Amino acid sequence: MSEQYLKDRDIEFLLYEFLDTEALLQRPRYAEHSREVFNATLDTARTIAEKYFADHYTKGDACEPTFDGETVTLIEETHKAWHAFAEAGFLAAHYDFDEGGMQLPEVILRSAMAYINAANVGTAAYPFLTLGAANLVRSFASEDLKNTYLPPMMDGRYAGTMALTEPDQGSALADIRTTATPAEDGSYRLRGQKMFISGGDQSITENIVHMVLARIKDAPPGVKGISLFLVPKFIPATDGAAPIRNDVQLAGLLHKMGYRNTTSTVLSFGESGGAVGYLVGEPHKGLSYMFQLMNEARIGVGTGAAVLGYRGYQHALQYAKERPQGRLPSNRDPQSKQVPIIQHADVRRMLLMQKSYVEGGLALCLYASSLFEDAHSAETENERQQAAELLDLLTPIVKSWPSKYCLKANDLAIQVLGGSGYIREYPLEQLYRDNRLNPIHEGTEGIQAMDLLGRKVPAKGLAGYQLLAGEIGKTLAACADSDELNALAQRLGDGLGRLNSTTEILLGQMAADADLGLANAALYLDAFGRVVVSWIWLRQALIASRRLNTNLSENEENFYRGKLQAARFYIEWELPEIEPQLTLLEAGNRVPFEMQRDWF
Amino acid sequence: MSEQYLKDRDIEFLLYEFLDTEALLQRPRYAEHSREVFNATLDTARTIAEKYFADHYTKGDACEPTFDGETVTLIEETHKAWHAFAEAGFLAAHYDFDEGGMQLPEVILRSAMAYINAANVGTAAYPFLTLGAANLVRSFASEDLKNTYLPPMMDGRYAGTMALTEPDQGSALADIRTTATPAEDGSYRLRGQKMFISGGDQSITENIVHMVLARIKDAPPGVKGISLFLVPKFIPATDGAAPIRNDVQLAGLLHKMGYRNTTSTVLSFGESGGAVGYLVGEPHKGLSYMFQLMNEARIGVGTGAAVLGYRGYQHALQYAKERPQGRLPSNRDPQSKQVPIIQHADVRRMLLMQKSYVEGGLALCLYASSLFEDAHSAETENERQQAAELLDLLTPIVKSWPSKYCLKANDLAIQVLGGSGYIREYPLEQLYRDNRLNPIHEGTEGIQAMDLLGRKVPAKGLAGYQLLAGEIGKTLAACADSDELNALAQRLGDGLGRLNSTTEILLGQMAADADLGLANAALYLDAFGRVVVSWIWLRQALIASRRLNTNLSENEENFYRGKLQAARFYIEWELPEIEPQLTLLEAGNRVPFEMQRDWF
Repeated sequence: MSEQYLKDRDIEFLLYEFLDTEALLQRPRYAEHSREVFNATLDTARTIAEKYFADHYTKGDACEPTFDGETVTLIEETHKAWHAFAEAGFLAAHYDFDEGGMQLPEVILRSAMAYINAANVGTAAYPFLTLGAANLVRSFASEDLKNTYLPPMMDGRYAGTMALTEPDQGSALADIRTTATPAEDGSYRLRGQKMFISGGDQSITENIVHMVLARIKDAPPGVKGISLFLVPKFIPATDGAAPIRNDVQLAGLLHKMGYRNTTSTVLSFGESGGAVGYLVGEPHKGLSYMFQLMNEARIGVGTGAAVLGYRGYQHALQYAKERPQGRLPSNRDPQSKQVPIIQHADVRRMLLMQKSYVEGGLALCLYASSLFEDAHSAETENERQQAAELLDLLTPIVKSWPSKYCLKANDLAIQVLGGSGYIREYPLEQLYRDNRLNPIHEGTEGIQAMDLLGRKVPAKGLAGYQLLAGEIGKTLAACADSDELNALAQRLGDGLGRLNSTTEILLGQMAADADLGLANAALYLDAFGRVVVSWIWLRQALIASRRLNTNLSENEENFYRGKLQAARFYIEWELPEIEPQLTLLEAGNRVPFEMQRDWF
Repeated sequence: MSEQYLKDRDIEFLLYEFLDTEALLQRPRYAEHSREVFNATLDTARTIAEKYFADHYTKGDACEPTFDGETVTLIEETHKAWHAFAEAGFLAAHYDFDEGGMQLPEVILRSAMAYINAANVGTAAYPFLTLGAANLVRSFASEDLKNTYLPPMMDGRYAGTMALTEPDQGSALADIRTTATPAEDGSYRLRGQKMFISGGDQSITENIVHMVLARIKDAPPGVKGISLFLVPKFIPATDGAAPIRNDVQLAGLLHKMGYRNTTSTVLSFGESGGAVGYLVGEPHKGLSYMFQLMNEARIGVGTGAAVLGYRGYQHALQYAKERPQGRLPSNRDPQSKQVPIIQHADVRRMLLMQKSYVEGGLALCLYASSLFEDAHSAETENERQQAAELLDLLTPIVKSWPSKYCLKANDLAIQVLGGSGYIREYPLEQLYRDNRLNPIHEGTEGIQAMDLLGRKVPAKGLAGYQLLAGEIGKTLAACADSDELNALAQRLGDGLGRLNSTTEILLGQMAADADLGLANAALYLDAFGRVVVSWIWLRQALIASRRLNTNLSENEENFYRGKLQAARFYIEWELPEIEPQLTLLEAGNRVPFEMQRDWF
């Protein structure tokens, strides 16, 4: 890319300084790898991103997919991108060697995918959804299903989707109505309609594997009666005959504000008798299986939001360095030269705010990926369990914080460019439109807030919460002997203390009245996110501060000074907003709760 | 409109309870009018909005203007809307009877235009720009120019534009480079390029009158050397011959994220020798003339932003009342009926936040319009001057606060609808895209912030600021004997006190170092806006509280309860955020200011 969407030096910092990714090489699963292999993986992703994804970011937006009643047409570049991604092995890179994979760690692949996403989020959705769907098949499907569907999902012949939402049910999964009726051959016949299914139809792959939530006849009501089915668009024939078109029809495309190169579909299952589907795992356990995918997808959404913000920030920064306009307030000489707008304090504020959001957001997401890795490959059972608990707690933050603040970063990037930010001749308005999806899909802000306060925080006697507090405590202790960081650590410590006491009060409120106790959960989610991201920034500052005490090149010194300044910004400007938030929460403010329908 | 974009009851409240618009009838200029005439004006606007503007809101976005190198093509509905607007007399409604106008007050016309804007902001821009340009001609042009150009701008044959921005200069008006050379006949020849000129070319009217800022040869440098010119697209012939095409060419259309039915143009003046232009007013005074238009346009931008937010809020509210989804946290029975989503506390929070932004924003803008009216038609010189000073102070808030928060209202409206909010099958994503322009044009957020802190607050020994503090004080005093409002008044009083002391500190900082003192002006703008809008809400609450002590119908009681609850929300949830903001300002926080270019 002529334009750098992600700062390579920052990725390197996050992987090898902020996280100790090299330590993974000590684990048996990665013993055959090296830092060079990890970096080569990133290089490959960057090259593919540049060559096959970035080229049609704008075109895929302007020429969105069309449906003529028979066929969905996508621009040709989408096909090439898909195949380049598949041929590089990325659809199978996280699988073990003996499964045909590359046995690469999560955090490396997440970083590699960050490049792909930054280059073209609308096209990246196809392989990303396929990765998720294949993981479900791999984890829960029968050997038979695996043998049939996994190889073509790993080599790019088949794509995958996740089909949860229905027109009448939205976020309320308990109310899924699609039915599955057992057939004599052990398969099922599905009937119902799904909506907002990304990649639900396309012309890229020879087949599409839908992972569908449905209800078997006489299943228990609510979430405990939902099962997971594999429903292919084409049923592969076993005898070499042509595959049979399944009874899944595209009812229509939806037309999104952004993410336009990803088809968003309404799918009808079983309008001509019943769509053939295969039960995945046990009956009625579909939602818990799907949540494996959802949790991974939520880290993916957070990372996607972060890199869209990151790309916008990089663009705005470049523009601000190059664009001359106006003079400083102290300069009254209209004949003096105009200054680059980065010299205006307000432009620097907007850029620093973006930096704190996007680098903070990406650090948060890669940290979550490292927890995901630890939950699977850490040495001891205890380590694995702690990582899983911490990740469980943080998932609502990892999903929602970048979705909110890295969208805000895109908003600020537009503002730095002014009128140019608002026109399609520059990429910023598209980044903003694309990123607006992220606070919605894979669980809205409101859903994440209820999940955090209602479920994740109280889980197992606050086990995850206490682990987090312990981790933050370690960072605070490490800052104690640094004059530079002590004041920041003090602020974070105070913030954590306030969060602790507010959390206790809220748990009491919830016990007394669940509806009232959860009413202001969105405020809690935001305040919690500010504490977590302040910690993420303090950790980065701690590394920077140590490195700045060594001999550094000018570039390196600038890099670490920037980290330090961004940490200072976040903790001095953004963390203090928890004060009025926590005050409202502690008081159990009832103003929105008591607002009546007819008063609006 | 089958959909109500603005709540009529609220407009009535704002005009006749919040503002005392009926009192205008005592003024000589409006003696021949009546409340019925005012209401008939609103009815006409609402009818035209519904019939000629709302019909192509979506179509004008999907089928944006095109340019084939010769002609700009707009969808046919735009032409019809323009003519309906002109035929209703709205292009001249604010002129005196003897000028051929309707002699209507500003606040009534601003409310009428709110309906038009809510219906279709992309089409409304053409008449709105023409109104502004005609005002400039009327105020400052020679009798000759007025006789030639004003009548066709008042009856809809000519449209108008304001042509300030140039490609290399952006917001920095001091650096305008377009030149004007005197010709022998007393006119000038203009040469240069203008960018982001809305309505700069179109196929609706037979002529376009550009109000152009340019520099006469040997003019003083900077803003003191800028003159205003009238440059028509066609020069009308005096002898009945065909008009002559002037040397103003459309270099190209820009393609915006929203506001798509408004052409945004790059215009070349004088590429074939020189565009004929006529000096308006005196040489070198162009910027001060233009600021008359700019100040009116800034109220217009604020109002436009408010009504886009308002429309989105109305849509989200309707949806939330009708859309069933999920159950309350306390209800564990999956077989119980789903509830309309307005029953979820977080949805009510999002709706109440929108209500506080959009009704607060519209109240602010109509209050500003009433100040504009008072500045022109109040009885005494003293009243007129005070209104002008207060309006001067508030203009940056009136422009920027609704642009920021009513855009946020659109964001929240999308969130209430979830996936449906993100697709073009619903209007919310377009409202959000349209509204994103408002923090940019007519002076960005950063420009407004510098204007407020650097110019408007210190002006005339804080005259405007003290007037505002006095007005707020009156409202606080009126709340003293209400148990219901006392706590809210106390909070606002404390907030104002904090703002006062911070302002004093900032004025000291600016005197010591203008660059540093103004560095965090954007924070000040936001905090100042929160105080002002809290006051606007307290005034509404005061009226509501008094009315609630009388006998009311159920509908009326609901209406006033809603006002009270929204005031409570704004003052309890939004005002307290000034605390961390003012703390940063008082401390003169230098973190963004000291951030270095190479640290990013």
